[in-house]
Amino acid sequence: MLAEIITIGDEILIGQIVDTNSAWMGVELNKIGVKVKQITSISDDAQHIVCALNEAQQRADIILITGGLGPTKDDITKHTLAKYFNMPLRLDEPTLAHVKSFFEKLNRPMIDVNIKQAEVPDGCTVIMNKNGTAPCMWFEHNGKIIVSMPGVPFEMKYLMTEEIIPRICQRFEMPFIVHQSILTAGLGESFLAAQIADIEEALPSYIKLAYLPKLGQVRLRLSATGNDEVALLAEVALFTQKIVGRIEKYVVLTEDVPFEKAILNLMEKHHLTLSLAESCTGGYLSHLFTQHSGSSKVFQGGAVTYSNALKQSVLGVQQDTLLKFGAVSEQTAIEMANGAVANFKTDYAVAITGIAGPDGGTEDKPVGTVWIAIADGTSVKAKMYKFANQRLQNIERSAMAAMMMLFIQLKQDLEVG
Amino acid sequence: MLAEIITIGDEILIGQIVDTNSAWMGVELNKIGVKVKQITSISDDAQHIVCALNEAQQRADIILITGGLGPTKDDITKHTLAKYFNMPLRLDEPTLAHVKSFFEKLNRPMIDVNIKQAEVPDGCTVIMNKNGTAPCMWFEHNGKIIVSMPGVPFEMKYLMTEEIIPRICQRFEMPFIVHQSILTAGLGESFLAAQIADIEEALPSYIKLAYLPKLGQVRLRLSATGNDEVALLAEVALFTQKIVGRIEKYVVLTEDVPFEKAILNLMEKHHLTLSLAESCTGGYLSHLFTQHSGSSKVFQGGAVTYSNALKQSVLGVQQDTLLKFGAVSEQTAIEMANGAVANFKTDYAVAITGIAGPDGGTEDKPVGTVWIAIADGTSVKAKMYKFANQRLQNIERSAMAAMMMLFIQLKQDLEVG
Repeated sequence: MLAEIITIGDEILIGQIVDTNSAWMGVELNKIGVKVKQITSISDDAQHIVCALNEAQQRADIILITGGLGPTKDDITKHTLAKYFNMPLRLDEPTLAHVKSFFEKLNRPMIDVNIKQAEVPDGCTVIMNKNGTAPCMWFEHNGKIIVSMPGVPFEMKYLMTEEIIPRICQRFEMPFIVHQSILTAGLGESFLAAQIADIEEALPSYIKLAYLPKLGQVRLRLSATGNDEVALLAEVALFTQKIVGRIEKYVVLTEDVPFEKAILNLMEKHHLTLSLAESCTGGYLSHLFTQHSGSSKVFQGGAVTYSNALKQSVLGVQQDTLLKFGAVSEQTAIEMANGAVANFKTDYAVAITGIAGPDGGTEDKPVGTVWIAIADGTSVKAKMYKFANQRLQNIERSAMAAMMMLFIQLKQDLEVG
Repeated sequence: MLAEIITIGDEILIGQIVDTNSAWMGVELNKIGVKVKQITSISDDAQHIVCALNEAQQRADIILITGGLGPTKDDITKHTLAKYFNMPLRLDEPTLAHVKSFFEKLNRPMIDVNIKQAEVPDGCTVIMNKNGTAPCMWFEHNGKIIVSMPGVPFEMKYLMTEEIIPRICQRFEMPFIVHQSILTAGLGESFLAAQIADIEEALPSYIKLAYLPKLGQVRLRLSATGNDEVALLAEVALFTQKIVGRIEKYVVLTEDVPFEKAILNLMEKHHLTLSLAESCTGGYLSHLFTQHSGSSKVFQGGAVTYSNALKQSVLGVQQDTLLKFGAVSEQTAIEMANGAVANFKTDYAVAITGIAGPDGGTEDKPVGTVWIAIADGTSVKAKMYKFANQRLQNIERSAMAAMMMLFIQLKQDLEVG
């Protein structure tokens, strides 16, 4: 079963916003065995919308359209679909009642364009959008399904999860899809591929292997499609075992969760707490952990000590240390980690101090130089990294390296303990 | 001048990664007057690549392809292009020398697939990729330009900035493009549109107005295209003045910078410093500020006090306050902000405490309840918000609301002062 996603709106094409919707939809569709064949972003232009719709129907069974349903002049998706399917617009009473109650709750007056949001092409199935005023519209056309929904992420996500995915599952007989992810670190994509070339060659056509490199790690992903779930699971498990056996020392995880979530899970399982002392990552690592619900069971908090003054007052870094070795040094990283573990009373603390750039680099310590330390109250380890990329890359890679150091330390301590 | 972007790789379609490249390219192309007509994401599939290439050439003059140039089996872009343009592959000596030196620097052995990365279709212009091993390839075909480059963001960005954009500017005569952004808050998209409907109607065809709503704000964006830059600038300034005059009390900014950067600029100009005390936003607001280089002139640091213990020990929140009013309360927010401004010795401090969800809500304080306080050492203000969305939205909206409160406070204080 193939799907295509069409996102409508100039804001993506001019780069005002990044299209995060499509990736999310890709993940959810994959889970039920629908493969996304193409993602197309186009402008609010009737002719272009029609062209994209025609092209998509030649390739896919399900076309999911987001965006262009707002009340303003530049949003023309609904009118274009009405013309395309030759359905005149009619006022949908349940939608109008919903829009009215929406504005009443917000204590705002309704204006003419808001009433127009309750108009729908006569002949489509209207799906109520509980989180917004633009209704979701489901069309069936020459055996294809075309769904138009708003581009606002939380409106789209609710509609996909609660309405569209269940309807797709009901409408089609879906194959089973089994995914297995193997997160590796320490070996580049081409070297990994060379090491497991014969295993990859032996994969049957219905099992695919993808290499997904990111920030010094490579995630391998096996995806199997078929009708016999039990057989698929067994086969994927077998190939996973073969691959992991071959590249064992580079394998970090075989769970398909973000790395920070895997750390939280491991620490929660062992009733361990964590605090952070961030300098160059400026709160980014804290954010990675705290975006996951339940993170408070492990993550107690931390300090973002951008200035030297805060490194001293909040973490107890010695002024002498800063003067003698500088803020980006092994000694400062160690004192930051020790200070965090002591002041924040956690089992582990991670400290990161570095030069994210583009300014602040020196010959000795160029942009991208980062010191990371892990303390557990009795011992502390520090390591230097040299990333030398751009600011945001340096921040992301520092956070990733810190998680890797922490993960390895935890594994070691838990094995020994 | 129209361009299309084609991104190749399953990782985008299965949602493993979000395509941030295309938005970045859209911004850069717009700056030189190239409009992105369509962004298409497709899989590593030869037939699909050819189909996308054919369709794109019907619409656009420049086709920019990213991805699918890695050394592994699933990367087939180069072979597909060679066949498509009927150019046999040849080993490019300068590229091979570059790949060799790349591996020498990393102190890693080269394997066969790495040498193959130096092969290029015989007839294309090879552009050296200084940051990676996959060369960039520039084709001219029936008056169209087709460029293939790696999908790794910092490799692509370097190639676009240093090589491709200069070559496009040299090759074509480009019109001038003038953008003007007006950031508003406090009024929904449809109400804004109603208020300025007559101004929008009066816009000439070469000036476009877009509404870009995000997290309780709406950014208006005027874009003018033409050959007379001076006239365009004057016209856009005139319409901006008209719009701002009409909706004055909702206008936050007329600079085209992210909101947090505008705050940093304003505070830096007035030599003011900032610290943060984050609970439910968990470091996200710190990250927003610190992603910008030069933020350290204003942002001194802060605390991520996820646990009550850290709210007490780091920020000096009274145990009584937490027991009597709870962690999510006006009193706690105020004590957090006062504690931050005192302990971190900054001119302003912002505190955020709330229930991001999905757990932790009560009848009195449902998920999405957030208290934000701003302290300046002599006075403190707190305000409650009710967002009631999903966790990540609550985090983002809390950060946005906190920035809005701070910005309004700063404007007030600086006007009075």
